[in-house]
Amino acid sequence: MKKSVTAGIDIGGTKIALALENPAGERVASRRVPTQADLGPDRVLSNIHRALEEMLAETQTEPVAVGLVSPGPIDIERGLVLSPTNLPNWDEFPIVELVEKKLGVPVIFDNDANAAALGEYFEGAGRGFRDIFYVTISTGIGGAIILDGQLYHGVGAGAGEFGHSIVDPDGIICGCGTRGCLETIASGRNIARRTREKLARSDGNSLICQLVAGPDEITTQAVVEAVRANDPVATEVWNETVFYLAVGIGNAITILAPEAVVIGGGVTAVGDLLFEPLGKQITKNVNNAPIEKIKILKASLGSQSGVFGALRMARQGLQKRGVHFDANRIIGV
Amino acid sequence: MKKSVTAGIDIGGTKIALALENPAGERVASRRVPTQADLGPDRVLSNIHRALEEMLAETQTEPVAVGLVSPGPIDIERGLVLSPTNLPNWDEFPIVELVEKKLGVPVIFDNDANAAALGEYFEGAGRGFRDIFYVTISTGIGGAIILDGQLYHGVGAGAGEFGHSIVDPDGIICGCGTRGCLETIASGRNIARRTREKLARSDGNSLICQLVAGPDEITTQAVVEAVRANDPVATEVWNETVFYLAVGIGNAITILAPEAVVIGGGVTAVGDLLFEPLGKQITKNVNNAPIEKIKILKASLGSQSGVFGALRMARQGLQKRGVHFDANRIIGV
Repeated sequence: MKKSVTAGIDIGGTKIALALENPAGERVASRRVPTQADLGPDRVLSNIHRALEEMLAETQTEPVAVGLVSPGPIDIERGLVLSPTNLPNWDEFPIVELVEKKLGVPVIFDNDANAAALGEYFEGAGRGFRDIFYVTISTGIGGAIILDGQLYHGVGAGAGEFGHSIVDPDGIICGCGTRGCLETIASGRNIARRTREKLARSDGNSLICQLVAGPDEITTQAVVEAVRANDPVATEVWNETVFYLAVGIGNAITILAPEAVVIGGGVTAVGDLLFEPLGKQITKNVNNAPIEKIKILKASLGSQSGVFGALRMARQGLQKRGVHFDANRIIGV
Repeated sequence: MKKSVTAGIDIGGTKIALALENPAGERVASRRVPTQADLGPDRVLSNIHRALEEMLAETQTEPVAVGLVSPGPIDIERGLVLSPTNLPNWDEFPIVELVEKKLGVPVIFDNDANAAALGEYFEGAGRGFRDIFYVTISTGIGGAIILDGQLYHGVGAGAGEFGHSIVDPDGIICGCGTRGCLETIASGRNIARRTREKLARSDGNSLICQLVAGPDEITTQAVVEAVRANDPVATEVWNETVFYLAVGIGNAITILAPEAVVIGGGVTAVGDLLFEPLGKQITKNVNNAPIEKIKILKASLGSQSGVFGALRMARQGLQKRGVHFDANRIIGV
């Protein structure tokens, strides 16, 4: 008889991460395959199914529930991927229905920021806290709220859209239509844009110009390398980035007073150069919530957070359905 | 035999509101007495006890739990009133211990914004929603979060300090030490301050000068009356007020996506002149949370919200202790 597992699937812009977990919470298999998003949603779906079938065959297991994660925007209630930047031509793609039909088990669906938050909460930097606010800073900026082990989704699953909180009412218009969203300043894409704009107005002697092939090649990493060498343009960009991140994160703390803020995403790879000034500035900005009791932490799972979260979603989905799935009670559903 | 009731006590800057509720949820008595805050905490405490004793004697009841509400800042865990502006010389006053000793029943303690939110949630504008964000705009600005009928307190009971979220990073320093808090712009006190400052720079022909005796007498009501008469200075002050309130409330919605935002406090007495432009501006500011599903509502209980919330706190406190207190089971604890 095949053993029961939960499956986690995290669809990223370039890779799909998959994992299987047994009732004891052990990963019995994990894999990463190319997304091939440019070949359309049907191809991505067949990539998922092929990888999953191989993993199930190799481990002699069968899934009882699937946690499925996609970049946003998604429609959780209807199980649709709407039109993520990273997944072109996915307009309202009914991914949940298709995976459920193929596998015949419940599929729990959520966006990447929410799944990563859940992963960090149970297995990463967020372990041991009751309530956390999760922030991801990469190409864009996202957020998620976990209260007592459960994602707080809000109405229409709209909570946690932290990248679109206004931190500069006099700022530029965001792609979302709002003026001065945090994302227009502090996302990886906008760190690069602001650097380009400042370089265009500078004397052209910035170190950044030597570090990258051209203005379109500017990355957060290049900016940060120039900051470490005391380049004035890079330092100005970076100080502004930290300043506005601290406004946004400070505001979230002032409203939520979570036990911890866990910050993940590509931009956090710079480490102390981000976290040291950010922590100081947040402390300056928060004078009402008890900031001394609130930890500001770097996410610790890296690109694993999403698939770990997906596995947790599958497990929580079974719990909500009243299905026992633990080490002492292996079930075939 | 005396019948059991819960008692609600809401200590305000000028009045104390008290009420008794029977197990069926009916108010069997309510009263308002002067706080006499200037005579010190002991006098306030004896005012509370005298009024309560009279109410209990008249109704032939005895309390099984008390919900007690004070202006902030308070220390919920230790049951202390710290140093509210409205209650001078209350530094770390151990009110919970003293009331518990006197009455011999559990006292559930919270601040005025949290209690008002709870009142509005169960009996006012917030009825029927699952999660609400409550905002109070009066002398200061406060906030509270209610999720599924329970106050969300956050770590150190620090959640909901909405008045101190940053809406203008280039603004003035708040009393709390942070630059650009919403309260520095949109509280009643700061609406008056900004009006005074703008009048000092104007030609002195503003209608406001005719409506009040002097600069120190400026009120939100006077500003609003001048707005209705198209006074330019008043209109500028009011438009800014609405603009920044919409930034702050919009940000809270973007993070929380509550089903409703309920707005109370003295400044809301102006009605449509606030709510119409505020609703439009919030809709402009929120492009990610599903704003069309989120109601922006005026609080409906007025000065009753706090004492109604206090009664609910008492009831929830009994529930948490596993005590049954309902219409079918009258108990003497």
